Amino acid sequence: MSVVVQSIERADRKVIEALGEAGVATVHEAQGRTGLMSSRIRPIQQDFSVAGSAVTISAPPGDNWMIHVAIEQLEEGDILVLAPTAPCDMGYFGDLLATSAAAHGCRAMVLDAGTRDTRDLRAMGFGVWSSAVSAQGTVKETLGSVNTRIVCAGAAVNAGDVIVADDDGVCVVPLGRAEQVLEAARKRLQGEADRRARLAAGELGLDIYDMRPRLERKGLKYV
Amino acid sequence: MSVVVQSIERADRKVIEALGEAGVATVHEAQGRTGLMSSRIRPIQQDFSVAGSAVTISAPPGDNWMIHVAIEQLEEGDILVLAPTAPCDMGYFGDLLATSAAAHGCRAMVLDAGTRDTRDLRAMGFGVWSSAVSAQGTVKETLGSVNTRIVCAGAAVNAGDVIVADDDGVCVVPLGRAEQVLEAARKRLQGEADRRARLAAGELGLDIYDMRPRLERKGLKYV
Amino acid sequence: MSVVVQSIERADRKVIEALGEAGVATVHEAQGRTGLMSSRIRPIQQDFSVAGSAVTISAPPGDNWMIHVAIEQLEEGDILVLAPTAPCDMGYFGDLLATSAAAHGCRAMVLDAGTRDTRDLRAMGFGVWSSAVSAQGTVKETLGSVNTRIVCAGAAVNAGDVIVADDDGVCVVPLGRAEQVLEAARKRLQGEADRRARLAAGELGLDIYDMRPRLERKGLKYV
Amino acid sequence: MSVVVQSIERADRKVIEALGEAGVATVHEAQGRTGLMSSRIRPIQQDFSVAGSAVTISAPPGDNWMIHVAIEQLEEGDILVLAPTAPCDMGYFGDLLATSAAAHGCRAMVLDAGTRDTRDLRAMGFGVWSSAVSAQGTVKETLGSVNTRIVCAGAAVNAGDVIVADDDGVCVVPLGRAEQVLEAARKRLQGEADRRARLAAGELGLDIYDMRPRLERKGLKYV
Amino acid sequence: MSVVVQSIERADRKVIEALGEAGVATVHEAQGRTGLMSSRIRPIQQDFSVAGSAVTISAPPGDNWMIHVAIEQLEEGDILVLAPTAPCDMGYFGDLLATSAAAHGCRAMVLDAGTRDTRDLRAMGFGVWSSAVSAQGTVKETLGSVNTRIVCAGAAVNAGDVIVADDDGVCVVPLGRAEQVLEAARKRLQGEADRRARLAAGELGLDIYDMRPRLERKGLKYV
Amino acid sequence: MSVVVQSIERADRKVIEALGEAGVATVHEAQGRTGLMSSRIRPIQQDFSVAGSAVTISAPPGDNWMIHVAIEQLEEGDILVLAPTAPCDMGYFGDLLATSAAAHGCRAMVLDAGTRDTRDLRAMGFGVWSSAVSAQGTVKETLGSVNTRIVCAGAAVNAGDVIVADDDGVCVVPLGRAEQVLEAARKRLQGEADRRARLAAGELGLDIYDMRPRLERKGLKYV
Repeated sequence: MSVVVQSIERADRKVIEALGEAGVATVHEAQGRTGLMSSRIRPIQQDFSVAGSAVTISAPPGDNWMIHVAIEQLEEGDILVLAPTAPCDMGYFGDLLATSAAAHGCRAMVLDAGTRDTRDLRAMGFGVWSSAVSAQGTVKETLGSVNTRIVCAGAAVNAGDVIVADDDGVCVVPLGRAEQVLEAARKRLQGEADRRARLAAGELGLDIYDMRPRLERKGLKYV
Repeated sequence: MSVVVQSIERADRKVIEALGEAGVATVHEAQGRTGLMSSRIRPIQQDFSVAGSAVTISAPPGDNWMIHVAIEQLEEGDILVLAPTAPCDMGYFGDLLATSAAAHGCRAMVLDAGTRDTRDLRAMGFGVWSSAVSAQGTVKETLGSVNTRIVCAGAAVNAGDVIVADDDGVCVVPLGRAEQVLEAARKRLQGEADRRARLAAGELGLDIYDMRPRLERKGLKYV
Repeated sequence: MSVVVQSIERADRKVIEALGEAGVATVHEAQGRTGLMSSRIRPIQQDFSVAGSAVTISAPPGDNWMIHVAIEQLEEGDILVLAPTAPCDMGYFGDLLATSAAAHGCRAMVLDAGTRDTRDLRAMGFGVWSSAVSAQGTVKETLGSVNTRIVCAGAAVNAGDVIVADDDGVCVVPLGRAEQVLEAARKRLQGEADRRARLAAGELGLDIYDMRPRLERKGLKYV
Repeated sequence: MSVVVQSIERADRKVIEALGEAGVATVHEAQGRTGLMSSRIRPIQQDFSVAGSAVTISAPPGDNWMIHVAIEQLEEGDILVLAPTAPCDMGYFGDLLATSAAAHGCRAMVLDAGTRDTRDLRAMGFGVWSSAVSAQGTVKETLGSVNTRIVCAGAAVNAGDVIVADDDGVCVVPLGRAEQVLEAARKRLQGEADRRARLAAGELGLDIYDMRPRLERKGLKYV
Repeated sequence: MSVVVQSIERADRKVIEALGEAGVATVHEAQGRTGLMSSRIRPIQQDFSVAGSAVTISAPPGDNWMIHVAIEQLEEGDILVLAPTAPCDMGYFGDLLATSAAAHGCRAMVLDAGTRDTRDLRAMGFGVWSSAVSAQGTVKETLGSVNTRIVCAGAAVNAGDVIVADDDGVCVVPLGRAEQVLEAARKRLQGEADRRARLAAGELGLDIYDMRPRLERKGLKYV
Repeated sequence: MSVVVQSIERADRKVIEALGEAGVATVHEAQGRTGLMSSRIRPIQQDFSVAGSAVTISAPPGDNWMIHVAIEQLEEGDILVLAPTAPCDMGYFGDLLATSAAAHGCRAMVLDAGTRDTRDLRAMGFGVWSSAVSAQGTVKETLGSVNTRIVCAGAAVNAGDVIVADDDGVCVVPLGRAEQVLEAARKRLQGEADRRARLAAGELGLDIYDMRPRLERKGLKYV
């Protein structure tokens, strides 16, 4: 039942970088409002964005053994994504593991559990998105799996999916859709630039998006 | 049922500014410990204070259409206050809406729901207090109301009430009581300055407030 | 039932300082993973560590009277630790009390309740770890106790225990175990420095800790 | 600031009873989906409905003194509605207070706080809707108010408003709208009876409500 | 993006029934401790078990339109499983929809959202597992999908998967694994019957499972 | 670090039974409002009370091995009390363990974690108080301790302490105070019987407890 999938496909590096620049909110919109992790996943640092390929970890509650196993599977530009098999706020990840992961090319850690050594992690510039901060250590007794499909904070993640993370949270882009989502994201960003200029000039969304007739039809009353 | 009240009364600008300088904790005390929103409402920025007149929005869960409608009702110095009609952590508000609101004089957004584009919002210096951060977008399908009485995070808010927001949270001062609350706040601040000096010098609250006899009467034992 | 224990034992100042330098995660490990407060206790400031002797406060919900009583019991280097007798997010502690506590040698406040005036507290450099931020004030009507045994955020605390607090949370070291825990912490830190260097050089935890045979025995499959 | 309003208006007894028979879900719909308390308010008993006039209580956290004051203001058919001024799960209400309230005509208790003696309360047939069950007792030290406007679990309540409570939760009908809401509720119930028969016979909502063209227009694809 | 998959595969009726008799705890163990929904999903009734084929619904927050669409896709023995696209406690489902669903063969509703008319639903004997009870109604404005893959309360669900639900919660058995899981469940049940008899007779798990040597090896001390 | 204390003291059986009859709310009051577990600990059954001597278990998250160890330490009339070392909602306890525990004299299980097989447990008449219901099974890999001091749901528990549990929750009476608490509880019950009769006859608490002068002194206004 416990497996490590050693060979996974990854998206094109340039596509990944471009998705990271687009940011979570835009990417989430661009792929039809899917793939967003729960708002309980928060960054331990501010003004920090990252994108990379998911190396997934399914781990028992309070057991971080599989992170060691997963680190061996990392390639440059990857992001570790860990889902415990039951809710757990313990500190699965700290500065020693981050040092090891970074040495193997890892850019960030996303986990629906706790992290620790947060001050050191920020000093290292290693991005972490977690559902808790806790100094509580874990054991290494029970197996899990690496690079199998997981559900992390409500989002399904396959190994190799593109993870985009910034101050707004974490979004998962399925590997096979990465280019198409990027294209849609680019279109949104262009449209947004134009709309931002018009809104900044004082034009109303009510007019830009021609909302008035529809509001009236629905029955909105001005009094 | 869905209405937009177009003409609302506002408090005097100087009173509003002065309440903002007094800060949430002092204002809340000064008005008899009423009007405070729940502690789940947190700022997305640090060391930032604001005060303004409430333009209220009642919106369905996951639907931010009424924000567009409300922006047209803004005047210089207003604060948008949004309460969803059921608990919702979706991202109702982001940088585009902030750009539009700011262009119409808005100083801040307070909402018992999610916000997004938080990094951009901080960069803009547009203050936001919310109960969640989420990149999850909303739809524009169902009407709500603007400038009607709402309950936001446990506090009743009428259009035109003075909103004071800082690192400690958000407090609502009823429009009709703004001047009286300001006067009480000023008295508190004067008293506090004196007490702060005495406490900093090492005098004990037990003595300044003459608590010892009452503690003894209630039965406190020193062992 | 309401007592103030006036004379408490404290650990050696050098031991306390050294535990503070070791940090919460290390100290928690060094004492066998006990004494950690719940992850709901969060600092109001970042990149800030402290250690000191606990002066404990058991207080009714919404009543901070006993903090005034406790301040008289403070000595240089102490930390106030407050547990309400029922869950409460009200703002028990703000800048006036911090001014008074600091004047009596207090280094920090830890409370399973709310704090307020957070901006001022950060400006003062007075560390606070709390389960909420709230401007909601408290009353002074009902007695509690000072320097009796309390349970704060899931951790038992006796007066004089060493409190270590940093960005990862708060840990309690029993007074009688402080030196022994410090020794264990030092050993851990030495081991960590060595392991960090090896991990940074790319060596795998799988090899450093000789995990491969045990993983195989438990049945991990590489595919 | 602490007041007891002694004379309040109440709705017609027959209207109240009829609203109670209509039930929370129907009444909530009939008044435009307003007035519902948060889903954290749960009954301590099952298959139990009640309606009555609100006698409101604003009480400090952990202090049930005002319940004694409110009981003197009860009339036959009233319901006590208590909102603490900060979140609190303590047991404000138990079998002694229920005995007293029942002796003065009270039908039920609704509170955004804890209740205790739940087994006895069920045996008495005295309905309670609360946000917690807790044996934790309260003090009688700090004043609150009776029959002033409160916000209870997110719903604004004025003294004399009609409270409808059943297994689905608690809804507040403003006194001045009671008759109009009842009429709307009756219409809904008639329509529902007809629709229930058609749905039970296997007719689809898609057809009864003529949803197919609108679904198609919005772009729903059948594959 | 919004689709209704009309033709789905289902497991064998006898296999489904047998999984239902085995119960959630046994089935969850039998399939390697996967597929369990979060413990926030609770039944509105007691001592009630059911199993059936999943007809899945992805719905916007506060919008139950897709339930009407899904009912047309039901076959005898199915269970509706609804996941909102953002956390929502509103009452998506009540007695009218249950009447319609039951008329089309549906056995139960599982939803990570609210339900209402709970008393009527219990009286009908229509099983519901939900994350909230709320009278709050929803709108019919925004499309979702039917019979696509969803994540419901942390568990991935495909249309046609076997849903097993009882007092302990809800478990999802992938369609393709149903028979194999059933076989494993049967083996567990046989083993359990034997162990239950031995345990009831006073034999210790320590001896039945031969735990003593392993406990000693791990270092357990008896004092 | 992992120990099993084999010989523990217990309170007198008659005292234990009498405390159980007094009930949680009365016992909690009688011992000065201490020892109550958090309101998140709820019974899986209704109208059920029990009292017994605590056999304590400290267990890692997701690991129920120590329950097997603890069962060997049970005597007639004991109650198992389990605290995980980090928050965990997994199902540590089900009908097999209950069968074994009952065979060794155990009356009930109290745990700040999940339980499963709840329908069977109710059918067996074996009382369980837990913070969750979950079918999620646990492992047997990591040691904990039995009969050491624990903190369970906010209450400190020593082995041999008297546990009282009913519909209102769970209260811990320290072994050395059991008789004294019982005496205080009996006095309360006598006083309550008298007061209940007077309240049922319509006398007001305001008069029975002579509250009117104190209310007036504090400034309550009747309008």
